[in-house]
Amino acid sequence: MDTVTVLGLVAGSLTTLSFAPQVARAWRTGSTADLSLLMLVVFLAGVLLWLAYGVVRADPAIIAANAVTAALIGLLLSLKQKNG
Amino acid sequence: MDTVTVLGLVAGSLTTLSFAPQVARAWRTGSTADLSLLMLVVFLAGVLLWLAYGVVRADPAIIAANAVTAALIGLLLSLKQKNG
Repeated sequence: MDTVTVLGLVAGSLTTLSFAPQVARAWRTGSTADLSLLMLVVFLAGVLLWLAYGVVRADPAIIAANAVTAALIGLLLSLKQKNG
Repeated sequence: MDTVTVLGLVAGSLTTLSFAPQVARAWRTGSTADLSLLMLVVFLAGVLLWLAYGVVRADPAIIAANAVTAALIGLLLSLKQKNG
């Protein structure tokens, strides 16, 4: 694997894993009032398009990062729907 | 500009602009308690690495999206520091 792909995988790991503490916090506190619903919806739409972009470019870093991110944002969205 | 670059630019516009309503909400309410500080810090680190990745790959969609995202996350981070 070339160095640039590794850079992309590290970048993708960070932006993706960053949502884990956010999901954990929302789960623990049951409070999501400060999260913007519009942010979550638009971000999810963008992440799904990035996933398509990664597939077309055959770019494993972009595919992996955005698949996991989409799942975490979906979780946040359901917590936001539940808690307001 | 080819179709795939346009797809990437649309994807980048969505994931980037999604943070605008989040910044607006945090600004208006002065409340950022539900935002995870760890999320913001790790996400910003990841976005800066994506920016480097875009530069190395000479990919205008990735560069543009991550430069603006970094600025918006920086703003959110300063609001979080101020409001807790």
